[in-house]
Amino acid sequence: MLTVGVIGCGYWGPNLIRNFINLKDARVKICSDLDERRLAHMKQLYPSLLTTTDYREVIRDGDVEAVVIATPVSTHFAIAREALDAGKHVFCEKPLTDSVSDGVALIDLADDRGLVLMVGHTFVFTAAVNKIKELINGGELGDVYYLSTARVNLGLFQEDINVVWDLAPHDISIMDHIINHKAESITATGSDHLGNGLEDVAYVTVFYPDNIIGHIHVNWLSPVKIRQTQISGSKKMIVWDDNSPSEKVKVYDKGIEVVKTTDQIYDTLIQYRTGDMHCPKIPQTEALALETEHFADCIEKGIKPISDGSAGWRVVQMLENAENSIKQRGKEIKL
Amino acid sequence: MLTVGVIGCGYWGPNLIRNFINLKDARVKICSDLDERRLAHMKQLYPSLLTTTDYREVIRDGDVEAVVIATPVSTHFAIAREALDAGKHVFCEKPLTDSVSDGVALIDLADDRGLVLMVGHTFVFTAAVNKIKELINGGELGDVYYLSTARVNLGLFQEDINVVWDLAPHDISIMDHIINHKAESITATGSDHLGNGLEDVAYVTVFYPDNIIGHIHVNWLSPVKIRQTQISGSKKMIVWDDNSPSEKVKVYDKGIEVVKTTDQIYDTLIQYRTGDMHCPKIPQTEALALETEHFADCIEKGIKPISDGSAGWRVVQMLENAENSIKQRGKEIKL
Amino acid sequence: MLTVGVIGCGYWGPNLIRNFINLKDARVKICSDLDERRLAHMKQLYPSLLTTTDYREVIRDGDVEAVVIATPVSTHFAIAREALDAGKHVFCEKPLTDSVSDGVALIDLADDRGLVLMVGHTFVFTAAVNKIKELINGGELGDVYYLSTARVNLGLFQEDINVVWDLAPHDISIMDHIINHKAESITATGSDHLGNGLEDVAYVTVFYPDNIIGHIHVNWLSPVKIRQTQISGSKKMIVWDDNSPSEKVKVYDKGIEVVKTTDQIYDTLIQYRTGDMHCPKIPQTEALALETEHFADCIEKGIKPISDGSAGWRVVQMLENAENSIKQRGKEIKL
Amino acid sequence: MLTVGVIGCGYWGPNLIRNFINLKDARVKICSDLDERRLAHMKQLYPSLLTTTDYREVIRDGDVEAVVIATPVSTHFAIAREALDAGKHVFCEKPLTDSVSDGVALIDLADDRGLVLMVGHTFVFTAAVNKIKELINGGELGDVYYLSTARVNLGLFQEDINVVWDLAPHDISIMDHIINHKAESITATGSDHLGNGLEDVAYVTVFYPDNIIGHIHVNWLSPVKIRQTQISGSKKMIVWDDNSPSEKVKVYDKGIEVVKTTDQIYDTLIQYRTGDMHCPKIPQTEALALETEHFADCIEKGIKPISDGSAGWRVVQMLENAENSIKQRGKEIKL
Repeated sequence: MLTVGVIGCGYWGPNLIRNFINLKDARVKICSDLDERRLAHMKQLYPSLLTTTDYREVIRDGDVEAVVIATPVSTHFAIAREALDAGKHVFCEKPLTDSVSDGVALIDLADDRGLVLMVGHTFVFTAAVNKIKELINGGELGDVYYLSTARVNLGLFQEDINVVWDLAPHDISIMDHIINHKAESITATGSDHLGNGLEDVAYVTVFYPDNIIGHIHVNWLSPVKIRQTQISGSKKMIVWDDNSPSEKVKVYDKGIEVVKTTDQIYDTLIQYRTGDMHCPKIPQTEALALETEHFADCIEKGIKPISDGSAGWRVVQMLENAENSIKQRGKEIKL
Repeated sequence: MLTVGVIGCGYWGPNLIRNFINLKDARVKICSDLDERRLAHMKQLYPSLLTTTDYREVIRDGDVEAVVIATPVSTHFAIAREALDAGKHVFCEKPLTDSVSDGVALIDLADDRGLVLMVGHTFVFTAAVNKIKELINGGELGDVYYLSTARVNLGLFQEDINVVWDLAPHDISIMDHIINHKAESITATGSDHLGNGLEDVAYVTVFYPDNIIGHIHVNWLSPVKIRQTQISGSKKMIVWDDNSPSEKVKVYDKGIEVVKTTDQIYDTLIQYRTGDMHCPKIPQTEALALETEHFADCIEKGIKPISDGSAGWRVVQMLENAENSIKQRGKEIKL
Repeated sequence: MLTVGVIGCGYWGPNLIRNFINLKDARVKICSDLDERRLAHMKQLYPSLLTTTDYREVIRDGDVEAVVIATPVSTHFAIAREALDAGKHVFCEKPLTDSVSDGVALIDLADDRGLVLMVGHTFVFTAAVNKIKELINGGELGDVYYLSTARVNLGLFQEDINVVWDLAPHDISIMDHIINHKAESITATGSDHLGNGLEDVAYVTVFYPDNIIGHIHVNWLSPVKIRQTQISGSKKMIVWDDNSPSEKVKVYDKGIEVVKTTDQIYDTLIQYRTGDMHCPKIPQTEALALETEHFADCIEKGIKPISDGSAGWRVVQMLENAENSIKQRGKEIKL
Repeated sequence: MLTVGVIGCGYWGPNLIRNFINLKDARVKICSDLDERRLAHMKQLYPSLLTTTDYREVIRDGDVEAVVIATPVSTHFAIAREALDAGKHVFCEKPLTDSVSDGVALIDLADDRGLVLMVGHTFVFTAAVNKIKELINGGELGDVYYLSTARVNLGLFQEDINVVWDLAPHDISIMDHIINHKAESITATGSDHLGNGLEDVAYVTVFYPDNIIGHIHVNWLSPVKIRQTQISGSKKMIVWDDNSPSEKVKVYDKGIEVVKTTDQIYDTLIQYRTGDMHCPKIPQTEALALETEHFADCIEKGIKPISDGSAGWRVVQMLENAENSIKQRGKEIKL
């Protein structure tokens, strides 16, 4: 039975608490938040839960083996370090930190202490993403050519981070999970329309080896909500529409074929191929349930999480450099 | 009665011939193509049309007042120069030339001779684009924030130009037409997956004054056909779906409002506003009919076309610099 | 402060309990169900709620002023009669009863006792339906021509009622609410594919005066979920797609115009008219909140509910006769 | 080389002429129409085509072996009879005749003379319909449960026939082609909103053996264009959206399973099954090309067409009885 303490009960924390409580082999003993109203709300939902406005009480609690952090990103590093220092396993919401250097420090600390450090890259635990990964790894797509994704709507403006830090962690963690290559460099553009220096529209390009290219469009100012990803390979092509209630992942048996010819004019001939479309059944499991279960599993078995500190660090590295590139109007930054 | 000669009867030329023939005050006397089969086809459709494999015959024909050029882009400059030199008005398909310097030369030549030089930016004559321009100019959108457009499908690969030169002229000419500012700089990324050095996927960002940003996604490798443009302003937002048979332009009464407050924590408060959506009727006129009529009008009245040589040059400038930026992995290029 | 007792805590009862609890001037004192597990669940959610397996305890409770019935339809009549006999106001889920004669008895009883009898026609309280009613009553549609609706999906088969009794109460209550005429007759067809005598697919036509016609397609065997209604009038036409998250009601400025001519061949000339489409903002209020509030209001102010016993009776009359018509393969039945 | 004469060059005739001309082994020698402007138009398109305002010239022409009839339905019988009497094969547009008895006469006449009589049920030659027929015949759907179809839009009102005679021939011929049972009876409802006695909205139910049920919604007064058909079977379910440019036929691996149990409460248990969706590639052949080729083939080989006189007669029988049922407000009519 894993005993968990949760720091931060705002928008996302209660979902984590609910899911940890639902695990067969875990319990949530204590949670903290600066806002007493949030604590009262948690107490009403779970009368036996201890609450406190001092997050250090969560870390200091002798029963607590794992600390779950769902606070603003600027506080992640300090809280996670204290928790690891106190010998607790840490589950931290994404993005792991607000700087690359802090991320390294947390990874090292967890490694030194032999503790599990996991980042809440929830999409990595969705059935859609895992179906796509399975199709890529199984060779069904052939060589991956590009991944292009849009995550746009009339969104909740954040007061302290731009749209890249807010929305792109989803897409970057997905790309990191399904593209089996290390990104080489990044370039990004964006614009701020409210005059507060925080971009509300941004476009990020990630370069991988073998001419694989990833592109992310994040946007708080779109009249319509779009959550769409295209992934094309040499054999098949995927469109993933996360808004679609029933036909999320479509696999198109479409592509191009390059035929080498001896024709005197062109030495390559490009042919199109179109076939059936297939829409595999995607189980309707809650990703968060799998994610919290995975964290408990990793602690019990002493293994590295799928979304471990390094994965979290790679996402932060991309975010930091995307922001740098935006400030330099699209300058390429090597990773 | 304007007498027209057409050079190039491949994919697009026949559409131009048909539309010029349909004009009340114009006739097509002669057309040329290197391929005799194309000429035979035109002859079958219009028995009285003269045909030739030598484009110079079209230019030299004493009756021909206006030369229409629908040949591969690499030949535009030479043919257009000869035609202008011969004192003919010129309608040239987009892009005007394959280099910025050639474009300038044509503009100067046309100006010196007092001839009309028009570029076939067909979208500028569509009812949808003009409805959008009307909404922007009438102030209904408020300040324009961004324009984001996608023109993707499993496309016809070109043997000599990349996807930017092939598809982006549409989007660039649209942006040039509806955004009432001069672009300041451009940055682009892209990738080539067939190994012939011609990008098949590309992303272009255009920076305008006042933090207006334009973004274009062009792609020959998409399993689905998308022709979608979003334009957001401070008051309303537009989604234009050119694939939709009946509801092409949707105007959303949505936006954000920045309220200055005296609150001690934040000095701005951002509020969302959502209202009705309106889908104006878009007349189903053929853009090409309006375009050819406009060319004839400009000749008759001695006025500059909407899509004149300068507009053509601005598009070429963007294309050339987008390509340069792609080769330098997103380097910003001042315009 | 209205004191409510709820009979039936299966699928729908908990939603009613939650909404009555959320009312400012109401409380739920006691609830009953035959299944102890359901009662335990309710107790867990609302520790102060009394529970019982004997519905008569709810009716007998001296504090309870209003009884809410959310049990299988075959039990509605007996329970509602007992509650009214005991002097309680009654809110009964749809359909009110399983026979027309029982419905009349309940209406009479409520009238005699001066008690409120309301039926849970929830759709009548949705923002979409009320927007449509407003458009019709305001004359924007002109004369209503027809209403055609589909409510289909791979549905929950019921063990004791056919698809008409299960799904059509929604559509019939909507038609009853928005069409300002009394239905004249009904005809229906359907089919049973499981051999249990309960139709799983059915088509119902309702005839109104002035050639207004209503048609309902209900279906438990559809691979896709459709909740779509078309309403055409002489001036405008509506499409209501209840599945659409953001563009539920579309109003088309389309129609036909009949022009009387003196032409010798035809004495009428029909012309088409197409204009803009408009999508009014539909507030995202929970219909059930408005419905429960309306019940409390009616009790407090002594007024008839919008969905009173008579409305409930009219729906039952249609259901009963639709079923009769199906058994007679489409025979028209006068209402 | 088959020599064809065409009677009627209005809306559809030119399409037939074009397709017969495109056949390798056929030519069109002569065509007729009452409207000289239509004939001039045909002459312009095909200068060698003979034209006449007297359809009897087409029939009398000694070279003409086959007469193609694309005139208003009320004239089909007289023209087809004359052509058969003159020993010509006949291709007649749908519906074959405007009465059942006339249809029988034509079938008998063609049989007596050993001539081919084919009806232009074009949908029977579409790739979509044939894919669906293949799935049904191959057993992939299991037992067919129902077919439900909608063909609605703001349509061209006909001056002499109602919406059933105008639009339902498509759906009835499709049902006749893919459901391998003889229809038992028909019932229909509809309404006329222009006061000319011609229904503009109608709903038709067709009863087949084994509880198979077909339903057709045809409508000239819909603000949106819908061409959708659902077909459910015991194993799989199909949705065919003929408006969709690329994903016309979707096959859902969904259904219900009836499990016999020994449970004391219910002796059947219904279970749902949902799996993948599959969208087979549908070739983009023009149905009319296949249809005209089939006619030429049948003449050459002396075989019965797929859409022969009997198929045409069955469609007319349904149309006639649907109209009768509408006039009797849904009365079932045995076939």
